[in-house]
Amino acid sequence: MLPIAVDAEGGDLAPGEIVAGAAQAAAELGVPVVLVGRPEVVTETHGLELIPCTEVIDMHEEGARAVRRKKDSSLVVAAELVRDGKAAAMVSAGNTGATVASALLRFGRISGVSRPAIATPIPVPGSTPTVLLDAGANADVQPAWLVQFAQMGSAFATTRYGIERPRVGLLNIGEEDTKGNELAKEAHALLKGTPGIHFIGNVEGRDVLSDEVDVVVTDGFTGNVTLKTLEGAMRFLSGKVFEALVSSEEAKKASEVLLPMLLPLAEELDPESTGGAMALGLDGVCIISHGSSKAKAIVNAVKNGCDLYNADIVKRLAEAVAAG
Amino acid sequence: MLPIAVDAEGGDLAPGEIVAGAAQAAAELGVPVVLVGRPEVVTETHGLELIPCTEVIDMHEEGARAVRRKKDSSLVVAAELVRDGKAAAMVSAGNTGATVASALLRFGRISGVSRPAIATPIPVPGSTPTVLLDAGANADVQPAWLVQFAQMGSAFATTRYGIERPRVGLLNIGEEDTKGNELAKEAHALLKGTPGIHFIGNVEGRDVLSDEVDVVVTDGFTGNVTLKTLEGAMRFLSGKVFEALVSSEEAKKASEVLLPMLLPLAEELDPESTGGAMALGLDGVCIISHGSSKAKAIVNAVKNGCDLYNADIVKRLAEAVAAG
Repeated sequence: MLPIAVDAEGGDLAPGEIVAGAAQAAAELGVPVVLVGRPEVVTETHGLELIPCTEVIDMHEEGARAVRRKKDSSLVVAAELVRDGKAAAMVSAGNTGATVASALLRFGRISGVSRPAIATPIPVPGSTPTVLLDAGANADVQPAWLVQFAQMGSAFATTRYGIERPRVGLLNIGEEDTKGNELAKEAHALLKGTPGIHFIGNVEGRDVLSDEVDVVVTDGFTGNVTLKTLEGAMRFLSGKVFEALVSSEEAKKASEVLLPMLLPLAEELDPESTGGAMALGLDGVCIISHGSSKAKAIVNAVKNGCDLYNADIVKRLAEAVAAG
Repeated sequence: MLPIAVDAEGGDLAPGEIVAGAAQAAAELGVPVVLVGRPEVVTETHGLELIPCTEVIDMHEEGARAVRRKKDSSLVVAAELVRDGKAAAMVSAGNTGATVASALLRFGRISGVSRPAIATPIPVPGSTPTVLLDAGANADVQPAWLVQFAQMGSAFATTRYGIERPRVGLLNIGEEDTKGNELAKEAHALLKGTPGIHFIGNVEGRDVLSDEVDVVVTDGFTGNVTLKTLEGAMRFLSGKVFEALVSSEEAKKASEVLLPMLLPLAEELDPESTGGAMALGLDGVCIISHGSSKAKAIVNAVKNGCDLYNADIVKRLAEAVAAG
């Protein structure tokens, strides 16, 4: 099969952890992987092929502008490998805006799609993840775009998690149909009248972590704030709990009993385990791993990109949007 | 001093827990309290005076419309007691939209204030709470309103928590000045040019629980989603931890050591402890307690309403807005 193109220069821990993860994926999963990066920076490749480039887009550059200026950056070269049929998917833990922009400008959109959206799986222990979109590609949206997010998010949930008829909720500030800002009210009415999706109505921030909904649609501003709030709350509270567990010799002893129960939960909630987010609506597979990705996150992202490519995700997304 | 008017019919646990909390506040804090409710429903008053009304606004009614239609509802009568100088503050755990609407329509706005905003304190263990506003009064806002939210939020943080020069952050999806949706970008520019507030720039969802910021301003849609996401995440994770603590005899024994460390944290994060939110920008004190308030939440809300009235919060808010 085609290799997965990994941006060796994207992420807080690049290139070390990124290359290590890519190599581990190749060795353990048997998935072919190529790296993209500057040879003078990515000096250790663990035997993987390095597609050379001369530039890198850093975390604080504005996405679309950076992609237009840095035509030989690792992100743009990775996107071109996918566009040219030389890679099955691209994976990056770098600048999210630039990752989406490079994929958008090089792959192009699926016919009929207004805007790409970032679909981020939120782990729900004991159940399939909740797919949240848009998690940040479009800060300002139009109501009709949310309908496409719902269609694409449903196809993604079915393809990735095998959920037959994913329940779609609109992120809002109350359950009643009439609640919300103008965007949410208009989107609610449109979603209600869209065939082919299983719209269950408004959901609230607390429902994202529940098994009551499979796909949560919202604008990229609210989605991104929600995601970071969730991550912050989880990190805060788990930090406090683990602080208590090591606060004294007595506590440490007690924690020997409790840790085996808490660690599987921490593992399930760990963003390293989700396989990353996907930019939906583009004519190719683009996997976005979180900025602080370690090797494990890259292994899972490579696997995820490979699985989604093999499941013909782009075709399924195109069908979902065309059916609406 | 003037009594605090408690809506005996507002909240999931009304009237039982509400009246119990009001009575406890009167007894333990020495604060005069009057109840407002239908005599046939509020049959047990624990010796408190009951101001009778004939109607109640339920949780699912649209706020402003309900206030216009139900002129003899407990919320409207409570608001009129404040307006007429017969009560220092109103407290309700009922329909939030209707609570703000009754206060808005009966008290009126502070001169120069465009819109009232709900200021909700988010507990930050080991530090003063972060004041989040707007937590839900205005689903759609204009950038200039956020400037007033910043001014009022600052005055509130100073009055309530003694923070001398509160750090104000704009809730956004990145730290850079140019990030965000159109609203956030315009609000950022306006906040930067506003004298009298200590604007520290953009903050993200994860910062709300930190001690890096004192006042977080946003529109009422994003604010409400953020608040409910936080509450949901906290409830989810603490539920899982306490589940582990009682999962076996061995775990229960271990938890005897750990609970004394975790319970103070749970107590600090408990929404029953915050004293409730306040609707800022109105010509009177209106305290909003959460829907599932028990007696303890009402005790704290009564105390909070009393303290804010005594600190002349309305005058301080008016000065903050006039100074801008």
